[in-house]
Amino acid sequence: MNSLNTLNNVRIVLCATSHPGNIGSAARAMKTMGFQNFYLVTPQHYPDPQATALAAGATDVLDNAIVTSTLSEALVGCALAIGLSARKRNLSHEIVTPRIAAQQGLQIAQTQQIALVFGTEMSGLSNSELDCCQLLAMIPANPEYSSLNLAMAVQVMCYEMRMQALELADQEIDAPGGNRDEGPGGIELANNEDLERFYTHLEETLLHIGYLNPAAPKKLFERLRRLYARARLEKEEVNLLRGILTLSVTPKKHTKY
Amino acid sequence: MNSLNTLNNVRIVLCATSHPGNIGSAARAMKTMGFQNFYLVTPQHYPDPQATALAAGATDVLDNAIVTSTLSEALVGCALAIGLSARKRNLSHEIVTPRIAAQQGLQIAQTQQIALVFGTEMSGLSNSELDCCQLLAMIPANPEYSSLNLAMAVQVMCYEMRMQALELADQEIDAPGGNRDEGPGGIELANNEDLERFYTHLEETLLHIGYLNPAAPKKLFERLRRLYARARLEKEEVNLLRGILTLSVTPKKHTKY
Repeated sequence: MNSLNTLNNVRIVLCATSHPGNIGSAARAMKTMGFQNFYLVTPQHYPDPQATALAAGATDVLDNAIVTSTLSEALVGCALAIGLSARKRNLSHEIVTPRIAAQQGLQIAQTQQIALVFGTEMSGLSNSELDCCQLLAMIPANPEYSSLNLAMAVQVMCYEMRMQALELADQEIDAPGGNRDEGPGGIELANNEDLERFYTHLEETLLHIGYLNPAAPKKLFERLRRLYARARLEKEEVNLLRGILTLSVTPKKHTKY
Repeated sequence: MNSLNTLNNVRIVLCATSHPGNIGSAARAMKTMGFQNFYLVTPQHYPDPQATALAAGATDVLDNAIVTSTLSEALVGCALAIGLSARKRNLSHEIVTPRIAAQQGLQIAQTQQIALVFGTEMSGLSNSELDCCQLLAMIPANPEYSSLNLAMAVQVMCYEMRMQALELADQEIDAPGGNRDEGPGGIELANNEDLERFYTHLEETLLHIGYLNPAAPKKLFERLRRLYARARLEKEEVNLLRGILTLSVTPKKHTKY
C-alpha cells in the first residue's frame, strides 16, 4: 500500500465536543493533512452552521462524519486507538510524543484501521475513554500554559502522521523492490473487539479464580488492561491468551494433578 | 544557553492579517509552545475583542505584540527570517519542511535573534516580503486542499521549534557531567553560510563520484542534509568534512594505490 494511502486507515475521533466551531476547524485541519475519516462521539452540536463555516473547504469531511453514541462504536474494527492527553496521567499507560505515536500508529495503519482519539475541550479524555486506548500521546506543551485548542491538537497530530507517511513514501522510492513481504503485512494485530472480548474473558476468569476482589476489581484490572495495551497484541496472541484463560477455569480432562 | 530559552530568541511575525480571531488564536498557539515575541505588521484590526477572546489564556502575548508598518522593522536585529509558504515558489529560495526549518532556525537562535514570518490569509507572503526571508518553509499539505488556517500554521511551526528545542535539551541532560563549558557557548557552530557552502561542496562531490544520480539527486541528498542538520556541525567540523570532500575528488599525491 502506498504510504500516503495509509492515512485512509486512520480515523479522527472527537469525544463529546462542546463547541461546533472546533468540529469544523478539526475537519479543515484533517483535510489539509489528507485525512477523511471523521467520527463524532456524542457531539453537543452537529450539524451546525458554525462548524460548516469553520470547515471552509473541508465541508465534505464534516458532512461525512459518522456520529456514534459510544467511543467503542467509533473504534469498531480498529487495531490501535491512540488517545491524546494534555497532562501526565497517574496510570501505567504508555505516554509518547506525537512523533513516536505517529511512527507506531502508521506502521499498523499499513494494513489495519487505527484511531486518534480526542477528549472534550474542558477536561480531555475520561478514564473510561482512556480504557479504550492502547497508547497515549502528549504534545509536549509549555508547562505554564499547556491548553492547546482542540482543533490545534488535531492539526499537530495529523501533521505528524503526514510527515511520517511522507518519510515512508521516500523510503519506498529509495528501496528497490519495496518491502511488501517483510512489512507489517505479515502480522495481524488484534482489533478493538478482539481486545474487548479478551478483557471481558480475562476479568471473568480473574474473578472466578479469586485473583480480583469482586468488591473492588477495578484498580488492579485497569493495570492489567494497560499492560496488554502496551504490548500491542496480535490476533493470534489474543487467541493463545484466551485459550489459556479457558483452560485455567476448565482444565483439560487428561490433566492428572 | 538552555535550549528551551532559545525560544525567547524567536519572533513570530504576522503580515497584514485580515481576521483578528487569527491573531488571537496565533497568540494562544505561541504561548502553548513557549513563545512570547509577537510582531504584527499592519494588522487590519488590532487590538480587537475577537482577538482577545480567542487568545484565551495568552492575552499577555497578544497585549505585548509589537505593531510595525513594514516587515523590515519587525526583522531588525534578526540573523535569519524563515518565511512560511503555502505553495512552491518559482524562485531561488530554498524551501524546506517545517522540521528542517526548525533545526536550522534553532541553531542560529542559540546566539542570535530569528523570525518566523507568516503572510496574509488569502494570498500568503508577497514577493517583497519574501525578499526579506533567507529560508522558506512549506508545510507538506494535501495537494488537493492545502489551505491551512493561519493560526494552525503558526501552531505547527511553533510545535516543530519546541520539539527541536526539547531534543537539544535532552542532549544537554544526557551528556555526562553536563556540557555547560563545552556547549554552544564554548564551541563555534557553523553558521548558515558555512553549512550552505558545505552542502554545495558535498553535492558536487557526490555527483562527481557517481553516488548521486545527476537526473534525480534531490531525494537522497535531502536525507544527507538532514543527517548533518541533526548533527549541528561545528565550524571546525565543516572544515574537516570539506577537507575530506576535496581529497575524495583529488587524492593526495603520495597516495600510491
